[in-house]
Amino acid sequence: MERVIIDMDEVMADPMGAMIDWYQKEYGGEINYQNMLGGSWGRGFPEHHQAMIRERLMGEGFFRHLPVMEDCVDVLKEMNQRYEVFIVSAATEFPNSLKDKLEWLLEHFPFLTWKQLTLCGDKRLVFGDYMIDDHVKNLKYFQGKKYLFTSAHNLNITEYDRINNWKEAGEIFLK
Amino acid sequence: MERVIIDMDEVMADPMGAMIDWYQKEYGGEINYQNMLGGSWGRGFPEHHQAMIRERLMGEGFFRHLPVMEDCVDVLKEMNQRYEVFIVSAATEFPNSLKDKLEWLLEHFPFLTWKQLTLCGDKRLVFGDYMIDDHVKNLKYFQGKKYLFTSAHNLNITEYDRINNWKEAGEIFLK
Repeated sequence: MERVIIDMDEVMADPMGAMIDWYQKEYGGEINYQNMLGGSWGRGFPEHHQAMIRERLMGEGFFRHLPVMEDCVDVLKEMNQRYEVFIVSAATEFPNSLKDKLEWLLEHFPFLTWKQLTLCGDKRLVFGDYMIDDHVKNLKYFQGKKYLFTSAHNLNITEYDRINNWKEAGEIFLK
Repeated sequence: MERVIIDMDEVMADPMGAMIDWYQKEYGGEINYQNMLGGSWGRGFPEHHQAMIRERLMGEGFFRHLPVMEDCVDVLKEMNQRYEVFIVSAATEFPNSLKDKLEWLLEHFPFLTWKQLTLCGDKRLVFGDYMIDDHVKNLKYFQGKKYLFTSAHNLNITEYDRINNWKEAGEIFLK
């Protein structure tokens, strides 16, 4: 079976969407999507709220209650039958996210097991046939076929084949 | 730089030793080292205490307070200068161990960073030049040079080159 390595945040889960929803409810502030270009959706929030956003990301529970990306469950359920699927999340920067991410995954994707999750600091360490990720820094060193999963912060990237949503992932991987 | 992938439990940390110390203090029971052969130090505890040992492993805090293997800090500090060191621990089976393992690592090995830690379910996913691990199931699929780190449960294994302790690791990697 071919191996597909799939990123969690901004690919399966929607931390940016959750943070923006919360921020607009609490502060009613404007989001600057232009500032996100270059790799970080966090930069879309105003300078004077950066520390607070970071604190919320570092806290307990934030990654436990994220929305699941549309069509992700259905497509991944099928992919899991046909490929060796591994979910790889760069998570060790956020100690409180680790258990949250595991529980979130097993709740929303009950067909996956703990054996399929990797929580790491650096994705250069993993290998496989395909990688789906929203960050160039993660795709860069991967030796298999790479797909950039479209996200607000990577709209300016042109060097990679894209997957714009999970319907498209299904068209590529389940044909 | 060559990449060395190093296991945590029974290689850097001593969960078996910690569990035996606690068990003998609490219950004064005998440990059957013969039963460990075949891959699991947990089987060294009597049948009627298996559930309790498992519960302790699954609980919060167990992996936070483990002893560090002798000479591990000094040798690894040097290795970290000369190699690309990654610590890879099969940990997602134990949700409460994840944050504990990260904090334990950064406390005892302050020269390592969160970028160097991977908490996974399956080590087939990682690649590098060397792997040091006490489990055949982890070494088996690795494509680089493999070293079996000696532990009570693997004394009967003959197919791998061994590292018996961190002094020996130093002789191999720091010559």
